[in-house]
Formats: sequence, structure tokens, C-alpha cells
Amino acid sequence: MKIWQKDKTALAEVDKFTVGKDREMDAYLAPFDVLGSLAHTTMLESIGLLTAEELAILQQELKQIYKEIQQGNFVLEDGVEDIHSQVELLLTRRLGEVGKKIHSGRSRNDQVLVDLKLFLRHELEVLVGEVKTLFDLLQQKSIQYKDQLIPGYTHLQIAMPSSFGLWFGAYAESLVDDLTVLQSAYKVVNKNPLGSAAGYGSSFPLNRTMTTQLLGFDDLNYNVVYAQMGRGKTEKIVSFALAGIASTLAKMSMDACLFMNQNFGFISFPDELTTGSSIMPHKKNPDVWELIRSHGNKLQALPNEIAMMITNLPSGYHRDLQLLKENLFPAFGILKDCLKMAGLMLENIRIKENILNDDKYRYLFSVEVVNRLVLEGVPFREAYKQVGLDIEKGNFAPEHTVQHTHEGSIGNPGNEEVNRMMEEVISGFPFKKVATAVEKLLS
Amino acid sequence: MKIWQKDKTALAEVDKFTVGKDREMDAYLAPFDVLGSLAHTTMLESIGLLTAEELAILQQELKQIYKEIQQGNFVLEDGVEDIHSQVELLLTRRLGEVGKKIHSGRSRNDQVLVDLKLFLRHELEVLVGEVKTLFDLLQQKSIQYKDQLIPGYTHLQIAMPSSFGLWFGAYAESLVDDLTVLQSAYKVVNKNPLGSAAGYGSSFPLNRTMTTQLLGFDDLNYNVVYAQMGRGKTEKIVSFALAGIASTLAKMSMDACLFMNQNFGFISFPDELTTGSSIMPHKKNPDVWELIRSHGNKLQALPNEIAMMITNLPSGYHRDLQLLKENLFPAFGILKDCLKMAGLMLENIRIKENILNDDKYRYLFSVEVVNRLVLEGVPFREAYKQVGLDIEKGNFAPEHTVQHTHEGSIGNPGNEEVNRMMEEVISGFPFKKVATAVEKLLS
Amino acid sequence: MKIWQKDKTALAEVDKFTVGKDREMDAYLAPFDVLGSLAHTTMLESIGLLTAEELAILQQELKQIYKEIQQGNFVLEDGVEDIHSQVELLLTRRLGEVGKKIHSGRSRNDQVLVDLKLFLRHELEVLVGEVKTLFDLLQQKSIQYKDQLIPGYTHLQIAMPSSFGLWFGAYAESLVDDLTVLQSAYKVVNKNPLGSAAGYGSSFPLNRTMTTQLLGFDDLNYNVVYAQMGRGKTEKIVSFALAGIASTLAKMSMDACLFMNQNFGFISFPDELTTGSSIMPHKKNPDVWELIRSHGNKLQALPNEIAMMITNLPSGYHRDLQLLKENLFPAFGILKDCLKMAGLMLENIRIKENILNDDKYRYLFSVEVVNRLVLEGVPFREAYKQVGLDIEKGNFAPEHTVQHTHEGSIGNPGNEEVNRMMEEVISGFPFKKVATAVEKLLS
Amino acid sequence: MKIWQKDKTALAEVDKFTVGKDREMDAYLAPFDVLGSLAHTTMLESIGLLTAEELAILQQELKQIYKEIQQGNFVLEDGVEDIHSQVELLLTRRLGEVGKKIHSGRSRNDQVLVDLKLFLRHELEVLVGEVKTLFDLLQQKSIQYKDQLIPGYTHLQIAMPSSFGLWFGAYAESLVDDLTVLQSAYKVVNKNPLGSAAGYGSSFPLNRTMTTQLLGFDDLNYNVVYAQMGRGKTEKIVSFALAGIASTLAKMSMDACLFMNQNFGFISFPDELTTGSSIMPHKKNPDVWELIRSHGNKLQALPNEIAMMITNLPSGYHRDLQLLKENLFPAFGILKDCLKMAGLMLENIRIKENILNDDKYRYLFSVEVVNRLVLEGVPFREAYKQVGLDIEKGNFAPEHTVQHTHEGSIGNPGNEEVNRMMEEVISGFPFKKVATAVEKLLS
Repeated sequence: MKIWQKDKTALAEVDKFTVGKDREMDAYLAPFDVLGSLAHTTMLESIGLLTAEELAILQQELKQIYKEIQQGNFVLEDGVEDIHSQVELLLTRRLGEVGKKIHSGRSRNDQVLVDLKLFLRHELEVLVGEVKTLFDLLQQKSIQYKDQLIPGYTHLQIAMPSSFGLWFGAYAESLVDDLTVLQSAYKVVNKNPLGSAAGYGSSFPLNRTMTTQLLGFDDLNYNVVYAQMGRGKTEKIVSFALAGIASTLAKMSMDACLFMNQNFGFISFPDELTTGSSIMPHKKNPDVWELIRSHGNKLQALPNEIAMMITNLPSGYHRDLQLLKENLFPAFGILKDCLKMAGLMLENIRIKENILNDDKYRYLFSVEVVNRLVLEGVPFREAYKQVGLDIEKGNFAPEHTVQHTHEGSIGNPGNEEVNRMMEEVISGFPFKKVATAVEKLLS
Repeated sequence: MKIWQKDKTALAEVDKFTVGKDREMDAYLAPFDVLGSLAHTTMLESIGLLTAEELAILQQELKQIYKEIQQGNFVLEDGVEDIHSQVELLLTRRLGEVGKKIHSGRSRNDQVLVDLKLFLRHELEVLVGEVKTLFDLLQQKSIQYKDQLIPGYTHLQIAMPSSFGLWFGAYAESLVDDLTVLQSAYKVVNKNPLGSAAGYGSSFPLNRTMTTQLLGFDDLNYNVVYAQMGRGKTEKIVSFALAGIASTLAKMSMDACLFMNQNFGFISFPDELTTGSSIMPHKKNPDVWELIRSHGNKLQALPNEIAMMITNLPSGYHRDLQLLKENLFPAFGILKDCLKMAGLMLENIRIKENILNDDKYRYLFSVEVVNRLVLEGVPFREAYKQVGLDIEKGNFAPEHTVQHTHEGSIGNPGNEEVNRMMEEVISGFPFKKVATAVEKLLS
Repeated sequence: MKIWQKDKTALAEVDKFTVGKDREMDAYLAPFDVLGSLAHTTMLESIGLLTAEELAILQQELKQIYKEIQQGNFVLEDGVEDIHSQVELLLTRRLGEVGKKIHSGRSRNDQVLVDLKLFLRHELEVLVGEVKTLFDLLQQKSIQYKDQLIPGYTHLQIAMPSSFGLWFGAYAESLVDDLTVLQSAYKVVNKNPLGSAAGYGSSFPLNRTMTTQLLGFDDLNYNVVYAQMGRGKTEKIVSFALAGIASTLAKMSMDACLFMNQNFGFISFPDELTTGSSIMPHKKNPDVWELIRSHGNKLQALPNEIAMMITNLPSGYHRDLQLLKENLFPAFGILKDCLKMAGLMLENIRIKENILNDDKYRYLFSVEVVNRLVLEGVPFREAYKQVGLDIEKGNFAPEHTVQHTHEGSIGNPGNEEVNRMMEEVISGFPFKKVATAVEKLLS
Repeated sequence: MKIWQKDKTALAEVDKFTVGKDREMDAYLAPFDVLGSLAHTTMLESIGLLTAEELAILQQELKQIYKEIQQGNFVLEDGVEDIHSQVELLLTRRLGEVGKKIHSGRSRNDQVLVDLKLFLRHELEVLVGEVKTLFDLLQQKSIQYKDQLIPGYTHLQIAMPSSFGLWFGAYAESLVDDLTVLQSAYKVVNKNPLGSAAGYGSSFPLNRTMTTQLLGFDDLNYNVVYAQMGRGKTEKIVSFALAGIASTLAKMSMDACLFMNQNFGFISFPDELTTGSSIMPHKKNPDVWELIRSHGNKLQALPNEIAMMITNLPSGYHRDLQLLKENLFPAFGILKDCLKMAGLMLENIRIKENILNDDKYRYLFSVEVVNRLVLEGVPFREAYKQVGLDIEKGNFAPEHTVQHTHEGSIGNPGNEEVNRMMEEVISGFPFKKVATAVEKLLS
């Protein structure tokens, strides 16, 4: 179909094309848009651009709209361009001309920027909570199965004894580093862009320090050109933080699928958590793990997608940035689902006992035997050679015991230390300060 | 929220998680699923797994369902897992037990594979048509503005004279190469996986050559293990073909945004095709171009996303593959929209005349003058030096004429040759053969 | 260290920075630069920019330089900027002023473009040969081990019987599709950019059709602006073709590592082709496969790297493009090494016999038994239920025979058909035409 | 060439293939390998695996080797596999059998891990210094050109007044956020993996807390399975930190190329820092900026490359990880070069004065005028309409003054605040603690 005649159909197509999924994406931002306006109007009054009376009625109505959003009673009406216009429309419809005054000293650009940052800050906090929940479960399983030995592989070859305690605990500790990275994203997010207007500031005597405090931000994006430059950059950094958690989950899923495979057979799950086959009556498929892995890998591609979309754009706003929302906003929900599903699976995991009794695993103990000989005084090279010869001749029949005592080893996995590290990371997030500010704004 | 108790809520969550967006994605596949079943049942009758009578009533009903899909009267009912089950359900509801027989000798895996290939084949064909339409417009504009000179830049520095004829024509020729790449994707797609079952074939005496002919495929994916391995690989190759077209559009958009910038000012568009600013009354923003560019870059990230999701998976089906649909299926619609929008913009483009009269472009002609001196017998180095000195002294005042006569140059841009190349590429697609086969299946 | 004073050290640093690895990369292009000059000078003489005598001595010397390059006697001298300058320098040193004339009607840009295309065309041809060699080996192994059954997995769960014949053959067939994609890259490469000068053509009356024929190109990049736009785009398309082959090798490597794992134990390799461990005397590590996989995945990231580097650059040459060589040029050697190493491993592979005798694989035959019951007249759902109950009660003791007869199945893997497909693809490359042209140029 | 016969040539090829570029990459690790051994041997003595005397002579020789490395007198001899073997060889050659004892309780895996982490930690510190140097220059330029106005663009359309002060300062502030991200990478790096052996710990009673302190690490990678899992993950996180800085530089380069373009003409550079054209005497090409941009984009692709190489690998070491070094290790040098080159260019930048006097920029002031009317009491919509009409009628002739006073605006760019933020970030790196530990080890 050619739509090149500039008739009504064509222009409707242009409209549809430029709006895209933006109305859908805006739903994520609605409550944060109201928070931004609460702070902005308070500040406008302080510099004389609103009267105290105007402020009072605006704030009352904004809080009312916030409630409506929380209750699910807020809709983006047909013909209204975006969430920001919808809020303004409601205010004007309910309060008259004063409703229009909230846009003074603000541009759509910094309004979207502040919405985005408040949204991301909130989502990151929720995510930290979900990660912590899975972390606690992994730690609990690590302690519970501390003494259950499994083969450890290198090059996917049977190598040395490991344990379920170490396996669960490794993924717990992985989440600590993932949150360390996420914390830096949180810091980049938690700075106030409001007042940068279209990226070049405003001739109104805005008090940006005031909105920073009101919104619970840690600091400002000072330079207004940089505040705008943060668009895209912030999303990329946040997406990388998500990708880190996602890759931990994906790796755990790969292990789980392998361990469920009948050639390994280390773990299993109740029938309700696996799926069968329409033609093979014996199958127990790990679909949940496979989907966690696949979502995890999809999320890992997100930082690159964002980079591709913003690379080589000169400074200043470009409409390109609008599309960054599309894969990023739903990513939070997807990652939270994956965290929950991983938790559900792990909660119901069944561990095979005495795995190492299988004869094919006896070589696992070769290093133990070599080391024992070394501790008895045999030089390493000689001990290695002697054990190698025993293996070759089929004389190798080691005891199945492991004496690992150092930090982080089978006998001393260090769950408390890893707990301590997690606490240290989590205590670095200013969640309380943020909550206090938001509550005050809404009260 | 912890959902780790294996209660009903938890299991509903599992169900929701594993289904994901699959029901939505399935809508793309519905008509192709029916086509696959029409071919499969014809073949089943030929090997004695259906009677002629059973075949007749199944085919009649499948064609009826196909019509319902075309008319938009087909819905995936609540509680029905996927499109394939929905079709089977309708058949059984309307025809009784015989409806279930269509699944003999087929697994969900090869059914999805054949649906996917028929869908992709169809979408690629539609895309070729849309590309050809834009190509024709670019060629027309290239001829129309053959003599309108513009500066040519290298290193983004004013370099040598170019023309709008060359600029439009370059993007036309770019689409020729893009379709060359797309054709290889079409070839990979246009092979029949039906009969590979779950990736290891079937003990039924299937006639795969017969379904290949019935569905208009060019060849078979012979090896059943490879047929399954094609999942993911095919999507990646197709996505790269899309990315190629997308990057041509994105590059054109970058040029358009630059040329619309007031420092360049080479082109403009009617107000209805640009957007204004809520705070700057003089703005004419190129939002359509910016969104084409952004979509184009997003599409360029898609092959990498797919690669990330399938890399390092051992052979054989994995549920991971399900999620490949989510960004790929909508990509066709997005790319078609971008092609149409680019067409709408180009159709209404306004060209500034006499651009090179501006004094800042006089150096564009320095190479011309150097070459003219060379043709008059002055050695190149000397001519270069002489012109360089003239420029330095401010004595450089060249004629603004260009005498480029060779193939593909300003005076001889070669639009007919590029048309010929495009025809050659398009004639390499077996669209007629495919159409004939599909019509026959449905008649 | 600050080097911001514009002193000699600083300028030497600038020089080092801008040259980068270009001298190293240029070595790849040397012989092709001479080929380009042989064609260009022939054409220059035909349009009167060289005399017949000048042409004769230039051609003689260029062929001499070509020989020196082939013999490894060509060096990029210190202080000479690039390969193109080196060739010109040698000509001028040996022939005097006439040596400088070869640059008439040519810019560094189209010279590099034609060198690049000739280089890529050559490398792609060599690659096709290497792929064909591995393909033949895979086909031979597929036939050799046609009857050796292995478990087929879906979701990494034991699913249905497969065979080594199918496994080897699947990777052979995968290479057919990979070469189909590579052929489109070859077509994009095999067009002549020479004469596009700096991307805006030349005022000399160049005969580009003549150089096209002399260099054995299939067609021209007509539009000079597009010819320049092909830089980057061509490399991206070629890199995707390489990535396709690489991903086939990487997937085979993943399978190989899994099959070598002792829990699977399907294949093994002689000690000389595996590596041991410095602390575990029993290890046979599949390092060669792991490195093929890793190189394969690295190569899969290359198209994305190239896209990232060229995205959002306006049309016209930018120095950015210089860096595209750095990971692309060595990629050919790496991929060839991987193909050879995969061949070496496969040639020496040891297959475990009677794998399916292991009791854990008995469920593989459940579909076979269900299908047999269906063919005997039992309705599918009932047959499925009956076999399911047998499995649950432990009564399932199937015969270990497989009767798959259809195209591409265990009993009929279709190696000849896959050979036929490969022949069809390879016959689509105009290698003979190219060789004839190159020989004529050099004779 | 077929090399499938397992003869000497073939095996030499295998050797070459598996070693790859590892010897070259190892050069980066040499000094850090010695540091690791100094700490490891100290610990071995403390648990009785070395005598005090053995320790003394080992330490003396290790420090000697460290010096040789620093002086450039250390070579990886032919036939020696890697840096670790070379150090052991030197020790054994010089000290006899005791040299071999340093490998007790350590595997190649954790030895490489600790080398890698010490190397990355060091490189990140150096990078912070280079970033700070560029930051200081940007801040200085920002203050110097505080009052020089330039047009600010949105959608690449002339929008509102900006300034060179804001432009330089924006990139300074961008580096603050980049270092925030880099700091999280530093934290992930700065944990001790030594003692994890092959990823499953050791039966020796290692004191990992002791080596943590000796090497100045902040904490341990406790869980030995996780310590190994950090390989690849750490590199990915570090590469993302590099990519952040790189993208800031690339964006600045894009701006610089645009501003140097003659249609903009805002900035220029001395001839020595630009390059000319072989055929266009008037060209001043921004090659340095283009190469910074291109390197920047290449670096932006690196995290994705690393992700592609490690995705879907099960836990435990795989040889794949070896290849991660190849693009990552040189990336530090490349990024440092880009930082220095950007500094050199900025130090010598020439700013065009009175840019906004050009009539085409008068619309920049439309928002100023609208806002002034608003402050005078005219309702916004009316003020906007009035200015719009003036523009349309050609009556718009604003004063060229800007009164922006809020935080981060033209009149109040906030350089001191940005300095303060930078100080806060930098003070979060424990460089002093690390330096003290390393000095103590070497003393």
C-alpha cells in the first residue's frame, strides 16, 4: 500500500507511527509523573510562580490522581497524546486554568527524564528485594545440602569433588556481585534532572536543589546539557545491571538442565513443575529452567540494543530515545518473574543422594590422594605419577572422603561471610531516605 | 511475593510463565498452520494413514478454518494452549474423532517449524514488494533531481560536488544489495522441515518429498537432526536480512536529519510531516526520520539478540527457542512501517535549489580545477600546489560546473543499470511457484 | 602522562595513534593493491592518460612487485604510510616520474575499496574450499557411522533414537545453508567500486566497465555515492557469513564436549589431541573443541561490532572505517584454523559402540512402540496411555530396533541429496571467471 | 590443506592453535603473577608447607624476577608454555627443587584468576588517573569558555542558547558517572580468588584470609565454585566500565566532528592536529576525533562479545575463557590512548567567537522571549502564540542575552559541584590500601 499522498489516512498513519507503543509504555510512568509534579509545583510556589493557594489546590488534586493511579482508575483517554498531557487535562478539567500552570519552567524532556529516573529507582529497589529473597533461599539450600557431594567438572570433564552446598552457595555469592553492579546503576539513576528543561536550562529562577530534596534524590545532574545526555546512558547502565542478574540466573538454569538430564541425574523436580511430551510418555522437561535461561540471554542482549540505538547521536535530545522504553520497561517484570520462578523451582528441588558412589566418579578423588601423599612427604611430581599409574592399571580405589577446611571450601563454605557481604551491599542503598521523601511528598 | 508453595496460585504462575507471549505470537502463524495441515493430511492419505473419505472432510473443514482466519473470525479460546491445539479442537468439535488423526506422524516441533518457515517465507515476499516500492520512488527522485548539486562530504568536511540525483540513487542501489542478502535468507527458509517430528524423524513411512511439493518448497531440510537445528539459525539469518534493509533506512534518516538541520538546510518537509515544540514556536522536528532511524538501529541489534539466545545450546530442541518469536515476529510490521514512512517523507520532500551558490562551498570545486589543469598538461603535484596556493591567498574562484561523465557519476548516474540489477535480483525469487502451490492447496 | 603540548613527542603520538594497526592490516591487501593498479593503468591508457609505452613499463614493474609480494620479499618501509604509498614509491624509485601517474583518476578511498573487495573475494573463495573439505569429511563420517545409534535429546532429556550418521550429517547439511548465506556476501563483494574516487566520482573520463571486466567483477557499484557507502556495509555482510560457519562449528563443539563428558561418554579422541591436567592424572580435556567454540562465539560477535562502529554515521567517508579491518582481517585465518582443527578432530574421533544397550536409554523406544501399536490399529491416545503405564510399572522392555525409512531419517539419511545441494550452491560461485580474469591481468 | 593425519605437523598445528595469542597476552600478567606468588609462598610457610628458609630464598628470587620484569629483561622463552611456567622455570633454574614448591595448594586456574584480578585492578587504577586528567581539562575549558554562547540543538534543530561552558562541562560530568560505574567493577575485581584451586578448593589447610590481606584485596571470593565462576563475569563487568568511558569519548567526538564541519564551524584545530587530503587542498580532516569515535564504538561492542563467549557455559572452568584476554587486555591501552588524544585535541581547540550573531540563530531566543512575557504576566499559551506570529511575519528580533541562573545553567554551570562529585567518587577507591599492601609485598 502506498500512503504517500498527504491525505488524512497518511497523516493518521504518521500519527500512529510516531506514537508507537508510547501510550502503553507511559502506563509505567504515571505515578512517577505525579510525584514529579508534586515536587515541581512546591518549588514553583517557592519562587513565586504559583500562589500558596494555587499550590494547595493543585497538590490536593495531584494526590487524588495519584490515588486513582494506585487504585487502577486512571486511564489514558483516546486522543490524549501521553501520560503528561492526561494529568494536565485532568487538572484543568477539575481545577480550571490553574491546571496549566504546572508546566511552567519545565519541558517535556526534563519531565520525562525525571519520571524515568523515579520509575527506574523504584524498580531497582523492588528488584533488590526480589534478589535478596532468592539469595536467602540459595543460602538456606546451601546450608541444608552442605554435605551432599557431587562431581565438580572442569572442561566438562569429571575433575574433583564438589557439593550441593557449594553449588547453591556459588549462585548466592554471584548475586552479591550482581547487586554491587546494580548499586552503581542506582547511583547514576538517583540524581535529579528536573530543571534541565529541553536540555539547555530555563530562564526561570528554578530551585533545583529544592526539588532534589523533595524527591529524595541524592544529588543533581548539574549541568543541564549533561542532564539530557543522561537519557539513553542511564537506560544502558540500568540494563547492564539487569543483564548481570539475568546471566546469573541463566547460568544456574544451564546447570539445572544439565543436572536434570538423565546422564547426570543429580536433581529432579515434582511433575507439576516439569512438562511432559505429547508423544513421549517418559519425558520430564525442564521448561521453566529453559525459559529462565532464554529470558536471561535475551536480557543480556539488551545493553547492546540500547548502545546500538544511541551510538553516534550528537548531544541534545533526539526522538530516537523514545523507543528505548520498549524493551527496557517490560524487562523489570520479566526479570522479577524469572527470580520468582527460579525460587519456586529451587524450593521444590529434589537432590539425589550418594551420587559419588557411582564408580565412574572414583577419579574425582585423585587430587585428594595425591595431596595426601604430598602431606605425608612424597614429592608432588612423584605422587602425581604414582596415582596416575594406579589409575592406568585400574588399581585406583580411593576413600570417598574430603578434607577441605579452608575458607569457601566444601567443609567451610562461608555462608555467614557471604551473608555479611550481602548485608554490606544492601546497606549501601539509601532506600529509607527515598521512602521518607516520597511519603512526605504524598502526605 | 514468595510463590514457592506448590499450591494452585504457584502453578497458575508457572503456567503463565511458560505460556508467556506465545498465544499472541501464535496469531501470526495461524493461517500457515492450516496450510501445513492441508499438505500433511494429503500426504497421510497417500501412505494409508487416512482414508480418502477422511481426507475429504478434513480438507473441507481446514479450508473453512483458513477462511475464518482470513476473515478475522478465528480466536484462540481461553484454556487452549496454542494455535495448533485450537485448530485440532475445532476439527474435533466439528468432525469428531477424525480431527485428532491429523497429528499422526507429526510432532509439535516440526509443526511449529513448518508454520514458522511458511510465515517467514510469506513475510519476506511481502517485504520484497515494499522494498521495491521504495526503490522505485528513490529512482524516480534520483532522476527528477539529477542536476541539483549538493556538497559531498568526506570526514564530514566539505569535499567535492555531489547531487541529489546521486544521493537518492545511492539509497536505491543500497536496497539492491539488501535484497541480495535477503534472497539468501529466503533460500534458507524455503526448505521443508515437515516430517522431522521431534528432530529425530518418525517410524511412519512419511513421504516428505510430497509435502515439499505441495507446500511449494524448493527443497527439503533432509537430515531430521538438521531440520530441528534450523530453528534459531533460520530466525537469525532472516533477522540479519531485515537488519540490512533497516540499516539502509537508518543511514538515510541520519542524512535527512542532518540535511534538515538549519546549518545545512538542504531539504525540508511540509508542516504536517514534522512536529513542533511545546516551548519553541520555530521548530520543525524530523520525528518521523528519527523514529525510522531508531527502529532501524533496534532492528540491527536483533541478529545479536537471537545469537545470544541460541549460542552454546547443544543440538536438539530446547524451550529457549520459543522466545525467539517475540522480537522477530513484530519486526516485519515495524520494518514495513518504516519503509512506508520513508516513502511518505520522500514523496513530499522539498529540495533547496542552488545550494552551491553559497560561497562556503566554493572549495568543493578544487579537485575539478586541479583535474582540469592536469588534463591541460600540468603535472598533478604542481596543479595541486597551485590550487592550494590560490585557496590560501583567497584567489580561488572556480566555475561552478561539473563534468563527470563516467558510469555512476553526476552526469551519468546509471539509474537504468541499477534498475536492471534490481530486476535480476527480484527475478531470482520463486514467488510464482510458491503462489501456485499455495493456491492449489487451498482450492 | 600529559602530552598536550603540541611538541614533537605529541605529534609523534598523534601519528602513532592515527596509523594504529594499519600497516599490519595493509599486509593483507598488498597483492590486491597491485591487481587493482594493473587494471587501473590499463584503463588509463585506454582513455589517453597514459601512453602505450608508459603502460608497458608500469605493468612490467607492477607484475614484478606482485611476484615479490608472493615470494615474501615485499616490505612496508619505515616512514612509508601505507601499502599504496609503498607500491607507488617502488614504482617511482625504479621507473621515475611515470610511477606517480598511476594515481590519476583514483582516490585513496576507491583504491582501498577495490583492494578490500579483491581481498574479501579471494578469502571467501578460499573459505568455500575449506568448508567443502570439512563437509566432505562430515559426509564420509555420516555414511561410515550410519547404523551407530545414539540417544536423541530434546530439552536435554532423553527423547528418541538418533544415530551418529544423523549427527555428522546434520552438521554437513548446516554447512550447505552457511554457504548459501556466504554466496550472497560474495555477490555483494563482487562488484567494482573503482572509479568512485573519494565517493563523488571523477572529472576524468574513466571507463569503469573496462576495469570491471579486467578485474573479473560481476558488476559495478554504479552510483559513486553508493560505492563509498558500501564500505562498512560490505564488511558487515561478510562478517555475518563468517559468523554463520563459525556458529555451526561452535554448536558442533558444544555437542562434542558434551559427548566426551564421562556422563555421556559417546566419543573420545587420542591422547595427543586432548590435554591433561597438571593436578588430575585422569583428565582428557577437549581443549581443541573448547577453543573452536570460543573462537566461533567471538566471530559471532563480529557483525555486531561492525554495526556498532558504522551505525548513525552520515553518508560519505569517515576515518572510523579504518578500524573495521582489525578484527575482520584476522577472522579469516582464525575461521580457517577452526575448520582445519575440527577436521583433524573428526578424522580421529572414536565412537563408542552399542551405546543404547545401557538400560537408561530404554525409554528412547517408547515412541517407536506407541507408533507400532498405532499401525496395528490401536488409537494413539490409548497406545500412549498403555506405554505410559508400562513405563510407570517398570514393565517397559522394548526391542532396540528402529524402522525409520522416510527422507532424512535414520534409515535413509539422504547424504546424496545433501551432496547435490552442496554442489548446487558451489556451482553458483563464479570462481572460474574470476580466476581467468586475474590470470590474464598477471600474464 | 588437510592436516588430519595425526603426524608431527598436525600436532604442531594443534599446539599452535591451543596456545594462540596466549603468550602475547601473558606479557600483561607477568608482574602480577610474581605478586601472587609472593603472597602465596608467604602463606605456604605459615601453614608449614614451606620452611622459613625456603621462603626467604624464594621471596628474594621472586623480587629479583619482579625487577627484571619492570626493567624489561624478562622473556617468555621458546618452548615454555606460559608466564607461570616461565617464572617457575627461572626459580628452579636458579634455586633448584625448591622452585617447584611454589605451586603447592594452587592450580593453574586460581593462579590465572589472581593474576587477572591484580592486573585488572592495576589497570583500572591507572585508568581512573587518566580519566581524572581529562576531567580536569574539561572543567578548565568549561570555566574558560563559560560565556561563549553556541546554539543548543534538539532533534538536531536549532533550539535554545547553550554555551561552550556547558558543552565542555557536560562531558566532565559524564565522566563522573562513568567512574561510578567503574567503581563497581573495581569492587567486583578487588576480591581474592586465590585458594580456589581448580574451582573446587584444596585439601591443604590454606589460609585465604592471609593472602587476601597480603595482596591488599578488600574481601574474598569465598565460595570456591563462585571464585571460578567469576572468570568471564569479571571481564564482562570491567569491559562495560571501559565501554562507558569510551562512549562518552565517542559522543564528544561526534559533536567535535559536527562542530568542525564547515556548515557549523564552531571549532577548529591547528593544522598539525588535522590531516589534509591527497586530492583536495582545502581539507582539514578530524581524523583524531574520528578514530577516537571508532575506537569508542569498538569498545562499546566488547561487553557483548564477552557475553557471547561465556553465555550458556555450565559452571566450572572451560578453555573458552582463555580467549577473553585477546580483545580485553589491549582495550586498556587503546582507551588510555583515546583519553590522551582527546586531551591533546581539547588543549589545542580554537573556539569561534560570537557565533550567535549569525542571523540564522535568532530563533534560539524565542523561548527566552516567551518566558519573559510570562514573567511579565502574559499567560503562556498567549505568549507562545504571539512569538510564533512574530516569527512567521519576520518580525522576531530578540535581544541576544540569556538570563539563566539556576543550578547547572549557562549562568551557573556548577563546576565546583561537579568537582565535588568527582572527588567523592574517587575517594571511594581504596588505592592507598592497595599500594601499601603491594609495597609491603615487594619490600
